[in-house]
Amino acid sequence: MEEKYRNLIETTETSEVIFHGKVFDTIVKTVTLADGKSAKREIVVHRGGACVLPVDDDLNCYMVRQFRSPFEKIILEVPAGKLEEGEQPLVCAERELLEETGFVADEIIEFGPMIASPGYDSELIWLHMATGLTKVGQRLDEGEFLNVEKIPLKELLAMAEDGRISDSKTQLCIYKAAGRLGI
Amino acid sequence: MEEKYRNLIETTETSEVIFHGKVFDTIVKTVTLADGKSAKREIVVHRGGACVLPVDDDLNCYMVRQFRSPFEKIILEVPAGKLEEGEQPLVCAERELLEETGFVADEIIEFGPMIASPGYDSELIWLHMATGLTKVGQRLDEGEFLNVEKIPLKELLAMAEDGRISDSKTQLCIYKAAGRLGI
Repeated sequence: MEEKYRNLIETTETSEVIFHGKVFDTIVKTVTLADGKSAKREIVVHRGGACVLPVDDDLNCYMVRQFRSPFEKIILEVPAGKLEEGEQPLVCAERELLEETGFVADEIIEFGPMIASPGYDSELIWLHMATGLTKVGQRLDEGEFLNVEKIPLKELLAMAEDGRISDSKTQLCIYKAAGRLGI
Repeated sequence: MEEKYRNLIETTETSEVIFHGKVFDTIVKTVTLADGKSAKREIVVHRGGACVLPVDDDLNCYMVRQFRSPFEKIILEVPAGKLEEGEQPLVCAERELLEETGFVADEIIEFGPMIASPGYDSELIWLHMATGLTKVGQRLDEGEFLNVEKIPLKELLAMAEDGRISDSKTQLCIYKAAGRLGI
């Protein structure tokens, strides 16, 4: 750690697993702060995920609409999923693209990772864009229900701007794709 | 719920609080899926937060660098914090701007909310941009340690593009501010 940041560092003293789930674990740490005092940190431990914005040759995108339990609402998102154990983000993006939309891609471009919420959650979501799409057929997991919708990238950009799309990974894929494709 | 989305809806049957924290709760729900089958949902319940990108008249921004326990790393972000109970996002953004950077703003522009991770986390983070900045002095909470850094908006945009900035709320504030300010 660089010397100039020495004033910021905290040290983990103890770590207790409160909940061990399939999607995430909840842990509580005791840490020593930069001033020597003690504090608690509540943390969600998540393996990470990948998502992909599929863009066809006419700049139409293929989005998924699905029920999301934390909001008890149907939300419009890019195709996405959790990393399998040991899975590379690019492979996960390719897999989710096929499973959820039924497309294979000539090229998947990596936009890098985003942190979902750095204060308490270890999840990184790796952002991608897929081009050169060929339809081979959707392969949804058991218990997975979603609708695929075709929406022009230009319209998605307006939806990210005016709040019709609020999901962070989806908004970031749209802004980054629009920048790359000159929209 | 619209008729065309009837195939997507799941219904909560039971909900159990596993962990009741200061930052978030962990709950496990039993739900009935669209096909009548049963499933579990692991959920982080979070009150939400607000963040703000402070931009001065020369298009320099004021960012915070702080240690983040989930990553055991120092991360560059926009000023941000959790909503107090019953607090409006705009008020929270104004409060965090003052506490973390020591600025008051002539105007705070609302960019709307982002969802951190819709599959399991109920957190919404409300995005803002502050302009017309006047320095009155930082007022950090006890146990809060951070460095403020002045960085041109144009440089921040390059940092969001090339991965030097990965936090999602920070990237979204940068893209939205750059769009509004014609950068």
